[in-house]
Amino acid sequence: MSGTNQNLSVSTNLPLAPVIILVGPQLGENIGMCARAMLNCAVTELRIVNPRDGWPNPAAVSAASGATIVLDEANLYTSTKEAVADLEFVLATTTRPRGMVKEIYSTDAASVEIRKRNVDGAQKCGIMFGPERAGLENDDVVLANAILNIPLNPGFSSLNLAQAVLLVCFSWLSAKNPFRSEEVIMEMGDTSLARKDEIELLLEHIEDELAKGNFFRSPGQKPVIRLNIRNFFFRSAPTQQDVRTLHGIVSCLTGKRSWK
Amino acid sequence: MSGTNQNLSVSTNLPLAPVIILVGPQLGENIGMCARAMLNCAVTELRIVNPRDGWPNPAAVSAASGATIVLDEANLYTSTKEAVADLEFVLATTTRPRGMVKEIYSTDAASVEIRKRNVDGAQKCGIMFGPERAGLENDDVVLANAILNIPLNPGFSSLNLAQAVLLVCFSWLSAKNPFRSEEVIMEMGDTSLARKDEIELLLEHIEDELAKGNFFRSPGQKPVIRLNIRNFFFRSAPTQQDVRTLHGIVSCLTGKRSWK
Repeated sequence: MSGTNQNLSVSTNLPLAPVIILVGPQLGENIGMCARAMLNCAVTELRIVNPRDGWPNPAAVSAASGATIVLDEANLYTSTKEAVADLEFVLATTTRPRGMVKEIYSTDAASVEIRKRNVDGAQKCGIMFGPERAGLENDDVVLANAILNIPLNPGFSSLNLAQAVLLVCFSWLSAKNPFRSEEVIMEMGDTSLARKDEIELLLEHIEDELAKGNFFRSPGQKPVIRLNIRNFFFRSAPTQQDVRTLHGIVSCLTGKRSWK
Repeated sequence: MSGTNQNLSVSTNLPLAPVIILVGPQLGENIGMCARAMLNCAVTELRIVNPRDGWPNPAAVSAASGATIVLDEANLYTSTKEAVADLEFVLATTTRPRGMVKEIYSTDAASVEIRKRNVDGAQKCGIMFGPERAGLENDDVVLANAILNIPLNPGFSSLNLAQAVLLVCFSWLSAKNPFRSEEVIMEMGDTSLARKDEIELLLEHIEDELAKGNFFRSPGQKPVIRLNIRNFFFRSAPTQQDVRTLHGIVSCLTGKRSWK
């Protein structure tokens, strides 16, 4: 699960990722965990405003679990205003009502909005996160175009900083990501699904042996039971390997008879 | 941002949440952070299989940041088999290919699937997570109906345990109502899907008889063949009726022996 020695390039065909702006973060460990969460989601540009414990911070490096590229390239600012200066669309993450007239985006709505604005890298977007305890101040929130609210259990909505960054970045990564498609794929190993005629031969094998064993005692019940058996094996989509194994099982179970 | 003294009730109109199963978790701190992530997303039922450092664990409580209700009500198991025994649909979270024939769900596809299966609480679903370093073993993965893969930056996909739990639970919480006209539903007749422990009993029956019949001739091959057989029957989602019929088939096939 480490993944840290693999190729960190994240170019593929992803649109421009949003910039993550940490305002007044306290613990270096949290900054490192944010960097890791960002890189998990192919988000690489980090800006840090007035980190409490200074910068660089060794605690951040060890908590980043290999996402040092994000920390190495992070930029440091002394005010939120400077940190968002070159951005065209900024969201402020907060759960508290601010009494400000601002649109409130859910995580998914924010991701769609950022993707839309990033067609051909047209607009550079950023997402601000406040300090661990207090969150963003109103003077920071006011710099944003809109508010981002992560919709959680209203009875227990406290997230740590890195978890908030993770959810926001994952939502961005997943938006219109081809892999987000709700289509389910099948890991096939070295085999492939059995053809219907292969399943049919298996069923003949089973039914032959069942008839010999007087399985269908009541003639009236036979059609229903037979249909249920067939339904199970067709519905269950055995592989060719499964079909071979099932033939083997039937032969083994019946073969014992002659070994007595 | 604390939220810990607020009302923890999560009833609202949410469908039945999936059960979270941590298999062999190492650090109590990670278990606590998982509990917090779960409660953030209104997911409350935690099952723990063989935690390395014993249970209860004070480190879990302090890391849970108030989500003690999840820890207090967590159930402890000595095997994964027991932990999934009463569940009807189980996903195994893994990033490694297993060479097993299993469907692979993305996080979103899994969330939609679980919502669909939970209409009126019809099916109890669970999601398994492996130990921090190694992930789930094949013997655990085989118990699942399908695999859950969290689609991340392929160049840096290492998540910590609580972050994986958070993304999966948040996806479930965020999943839109899946009940649309194009949805695929399962006509169940008057039976219901077998529970995992019912399938386990069937497999014991089959394997007992195969052992008697000297099916596993080569000891080296036995684990692979056994895993394939188990994978087929867990993946194929037999109904309770199917399981009864399959017991009958095995008894019939082996029973013939004594009639000679």
